Formats: sequence, C-alpha cells, structure tokens
Amino acid sequence: MIRANIYVTLKKGVLDPQGEAVSRSLQVMGYQGVQEVRIGKFIQIVLDSDDPEAAGRQLEEMSDKLLANPVIEDFRIEIVAGE
Amino acid sequence: MIRANIYVTLKKGVLDPQGEAVSRSLQVMGYQGVQEVRIGKFIQIVLDSDDPEAAGRQLEEMSDKLLANPVIEDFRIEIVAGE
Repeated sequence: MIRANIYVTLKKGVLDPQGEAVSRSLQVMGYQGVQEVRIGKFIQIVLDSDDPEAAGRQLEEMSDKLLANPVIEDFRIEIVAGE
Repeated sequence: MIRANIYVTLKKGVLDPQGEAVSRSLQVMGYQGVQEVRIGKFIQIVLDSDDPEAAGRQLEEMSDKLLANPVIEDFRIEIVAGE
C-alpha cells in the first residue's frame, strides 16, 4: 500500500479568482495584513502497490492526464508512506 | 512577510463525492491499483507581518472562520517562511 499527496497549484501569472475572493473577504473581516491568497488542490491517494518507484511514475502520469491541467497548473507529488 | 500553507481536508468519515469520481475515472483509465482518493484544499497565504507567533494565531482564526468548515473539515497550518 502506498500513500501519496499531490499538490496542485495554479502556475505563476495565472489569475486565481477564488483566491482573490477569499483575500478580499479576509480583509473585510479585519485581517488587513493579508497580501495574497492562492488556492490549489491537496489530493491524497492510496495505491495498491509495493513499488514506490513505479507508483511515482504512475502518479506523475495520473497528475498529468487527469488531476492537474498542465496548461495552467503545476503539481508536486510526495510519497508519504509505503508498506 | 510571512508565507504559510494551509491544508484543508475532509474529516474521516465525511463522504467525498469529488474524490470518488476521480477515483472511478482513474480506474476507468486503467489505473486499477487506485484504492482511495480524497480531495482537499491547499491554500497559500502571504501575510504582511513579522511575528510568526501572532501570524499563526491569526491563520488559525481565519481557517476556523472562513477557510475551512470546522463541522466537516480539518485544517493544518504550516508557516513556510518569514522575513
């Protein structure tokens, strides 16, 4: 069993309207120090595999094909635990 | 300037329809080993502050009030860098 975290973030320069909205809300709520908010995805995956290297390659593929949109998003894969 | 990451995840036991849908799509795409997918938020915040402790308290408050829904979500705050 392999557990992995995938972090999907908008590329630099890509507008983040959700982050903008949250940033403004926080300012309205009195948090004046908020400079920037960017919102991405935090994906936790459990794979039935015992080969971390093969799993890493598979996760890379999954991210590229489905989990992230490579045109506007970056992703980072972190294998958390394997048994 | 303080940079922080906030990880917002659904509590254990809370249904994740988005994660379910992604899990099924991955299986249909041929990734038979996928056991579970849970999708949360990865929020990056920049704060105009030079006191990591006060910033930590503020981020805790923000998460509790706006960024997460404490009824169904957990959150974890990580201060990445302060200057």
